[in-house]
Amino acid sequence: MRADTPEPMIKQLPLLALVLSPLCAGAVPAMAQQDLRNLNDMQKAAMSDDVAYDITEGLVTEVGHRMAGTPDEARARDWAVRRLNALGFANVHVEPFQMPVWVRGKEMAQVTAPVPQDMYITALGTSGSTGDKGIEGEIVYFPNMSQLIAAPAGSLNGKIAFVTHDMRVTQDGSGYGFAGPARWRGPNFAAKAGASAIVIRSIGTDQHRNPHTGGTTFDEGVKHIPAGAISNPDADTLERLVALGQPVRMKLVLTPRDMGMQESGNVIAEVAGSDASLAPIVIACHLDSWDLAPSAFDDAAGCGIVTAAAKRVMDAGQPKRTIRLLWAGAEEVGVFGGAAYGKAHADEPHALAMESDFGADRVWKVDFHLADAALKDEIALALAPLGIERGDAHAHGGADVGAIIEAAKPAVIDLQQDGTRYFDLHHTPDDTMDKVDPAQMAQNVAAWTTVLNIVANHDGAIAPEPMAASGEM
Amino acid sequence: MRADTPEPMIKQLPLLALVLSPLCAGAVPAMAQQDLRNLNDMQKAAMSDDVAYDITEGLVTEVGHRMAGTPDEARARDWAVRRLNALGFANVHVEPFQMPVWVRGKEMAQVTAPVPQDMYITALGTSGSTGDKGIEGEIVYFPNMSQLIAAPAGSLNGKIAFVTHDMRVTQDGSGYGFAGPARWRGPNFAAKAGASAIVIRSIGTDQHRNPHTGGTTFDEGVKHIPAGAISNPDADTLERLVALGQPVRMKLVLTPRDMGMQESGNVIAEVAGSDASLAPIVIACHLDSWDLAPSAFDDAAGCGIVTAAAKRVMDAGQPKRTIRLLWAGAEEVGVFGGAAYGKAHADEPHALAMESDFGADRVWKVDFHLADAALKDEIALALAPLGIERGDAHAHGGADVGAIIEAAKPAVIDLQQDGTRYFDLHHTPDDTMDKVDPAQMAQNVAAWTTVLNIVANHDGAIAPEPMAASGEM
Repeated sequence: MRADTPEPMIKQLPLLALVLSPLCAGAVPAMAQQDLRNLNDMQKAAMSDDVAYDITEGLVTEVGHRMAGTPDEARARDWAVRRLNALGFANVHVEPFQMPVWVRGKEMAQVTAPVPQDMYITALGTSGSTGDKGIEGEIVYFPNMSQLIAAPAGSLNGKIAFVTHDMRVTQDGSGYGFAGPARWRGPNFAAKAGASAIVIRSIGTDQHRNPHTGGTTFDEGVKHIPAGAISNPDADTLERLVALGQPVRMKLVLTPRDMGMQESGNVIAEVAGSDASLAPIVIACHLDSWDLAPSAFDDAAGCGIVTAAAKRVMDAGQPKRTIRLLWAGAEEVGVFGGAAYGKAHADEPHALAMESDFGADRVWKVDFHLADAALKDEIALALAPLGIERGDAHAHGGADVGAIIEAAKPAVIDLQQDGTRYFDLHHTPDDTMDKVDPAQMAQNVAAWTTVLNIVANHDGAIAPEPMAASGEM
Repeated sequence: MRADTPEPMIKQLPLLALVLSPLCAGAVPAMAQQDLRNLNDMQKAAMSDDVAYDITEGLVTEVGHRMAGTPDEARARDWAVRRLNALGFANVHVEPFQMPVWVRGKEMAQVTAPVPQDMYITALGTSGSTGDKGIEGEIVYFPNMSQLIAAPAGSLNGKIAFVTHDMRVTQDGSGYGFAGPARWRGPNFAAKAGASAIVIRSIGTDQHRNPHTGGTTFDEGVKHIPAGAISNPDADTLERLVALGQPVRMKLVLTPRDMGMQESGNVIAEVAGSDASLAPIVIACHLDSWDLAPSAFDDAAGCGIVTAAAKRVMDAGQPKRTIRLLWAGAEEVGVFGGAAYGKAHADEPHALAMESDFGADRVWKVDFHLADAALKDEIALALAPLGIERGDAHAHGGADVGAIIEAAKPAVIDLQQDGTRYFDLHHTPDDTMDKVDPAQMAQNVAAWTTVLNIVANHDGAIAPEPMAASGEM
């Protein structure tokens, strides 16, 4: 350090400690050193936010998993109403809706030939049941979805299909789009070819004995065969067993069941704006989760982040526009909460829709679906000191704001989170509180606070890009 | 690169590719660039070894888990005899012995108050059973073993003890010695204080929903209460629930059972030495495993490493001393195989004992219990180009050679493996083939080949350090 310039270094130290991740070893994407001297006071304060962490920790500890339409999700709504009121939000209420409920039963998989091998399996949402006694059958291996789709009708009669894929880590989560069809549609194609069941390699990027659950959809009239995901190490083992060249047989017990229509609900809360003539901003997360984990990343963290940011804007003085929080119900099992919100609020003006539903790691990029070039520049410039680059993709929002985007045509801004390790945890038992890095979560809050503070106080038009310019949406 | 010195760089490239880990992201300790120009031909060849990997992969794929005294371990012995004969070893045979067998049953844990939370649990070896209906009780939390040891008799009547600890990652594995007592002896002290059961934080350094099993011992006459380990994320949750200040209750179902005395066995194979007057060298690993995983790291890899090295020395020409491979049975549940070997061979001379039972990551240090200073220098100098430093600790060998070391007083050399991630995997479902880094495993083979080639061809005395000098053993 040069003797004539000690001050900037000293001033930086306390904040530097906050933005450097305490978990820089391992798979946690490290926080870069940002140009902290350029943060404004609101951003600096947000970098030591603990509201988002407290909400996340509270949900996972005091509620736990929150499967849509179950008493667990109802407990989560009660908890959310209490917490949102305690934080000082206005108009906190639940908007209930009905949705079909499917619940997990027994789960067991074992290779029985050529040698016994225990497998870790979990049923996919809407999977059929094997019955308590289970089924046994020969494995037919498909190294990719294209081969499974090509399987002729009847070719898998009495067999258990096994489909795998090649999911790689991507920062932007695009690997999910590539590998996901094995889960989303594999069971449908296996059923059409006559399979008595299907096991898939987990849609995930980890190397743990934690299978990844998730939804799957069958075409109308296609039998819901038993469908499960085995963990990636188990899929490796099964592939090696297939490679030995002898018939491979598996015993499966999966006994999920349908519970019919049950009540779920969206939790709404607002920061009331001062100018009723300006359309509100909706910011979303989802309150429900899969049932294998307390689900800190998916999506307690999202609720923590958007809520902490809204509170910071609220506490800084009444904004011009209303900010509406949507803690959606029943996202995982078919986005029923987002659909219910879109239907109920279709005729209300919405200036802007945003969502946080990709974990708690840092925001690295901002994308827009927003007409006002000067406003985009203002936001991008304000985010830059947080290490956030300006992307050139069109913003799409998240699942829970999909219906309202279609109905009310708001602008959209995506604060893209680093997804490098997201699919290690997604829909597994491993989605637990320890995975949340407080420093990266606070950077999310700082980014959301930055954007909300600008847009909620913007009295010019906030409109989506014209169709012709965006070429989509 | 300077134009006048291109050759060394170019020559290094192919070997450099081998020693740089393909898994340098994540928790795998990276291989350093060694001084490859100083490797001898035998070491260079060993750095591309695939025998160790093939043995490991074969055991985990074609046998799977290998719980001592079960038919699975018997299949492993059959596999071992076939493979060792196929590799060209002499005198391949099984030395059977009897040992008490305990097997896992149903396993379930759920917090029932103040809120429901599912927990991932696994029973500890020799745990008692809760019966099929399970038990429920209030948790009494002990943040460390000292507090549990101090619990007065009767103070835990009808309660479930929960003990945790603070296990940290250590390269040399010493964190196990610090945290291990919570598993080894926690159940005994909880039973003495009257607890109806005990759950412990897993003895492990990972953050996955994989509980770590392992043995526990009760004093003579102390009741074998149900004893299980919950995963580290579940222990975090339980600690947070305790911190809420309300009574925490848990339901437990653990139904392990004792199977009485059953047959296990040690598999022996040899490279016959040319000079029958020279005492043999015994190199050990263990063939059995816990039942939660195919157990690549613990200890299929050890068998692969020592066997591949012995074969390289054998293939280089008959050594002077006999090298005896000991693939021990029944290590995990009480080192019954090592004890049986020590008893059966106590009267035979043994020059040197070594063992590999700490995963498949690189050897980073060599320790000696060896009198001949010149021989120690020769070995340490030969290992240095592999990036292996000379330690100043006394070598102790592994569990399976413990009895023969006590009985026959051989010298000991420890090739210390990097244990940075060993206790992420140890005794969990996650001990699977994907964890083995082929480049680091080959470095182990090169290190073992280096040492075996020197000692098996050394016709001077190979003796342990004198008692007075070593102060121990």
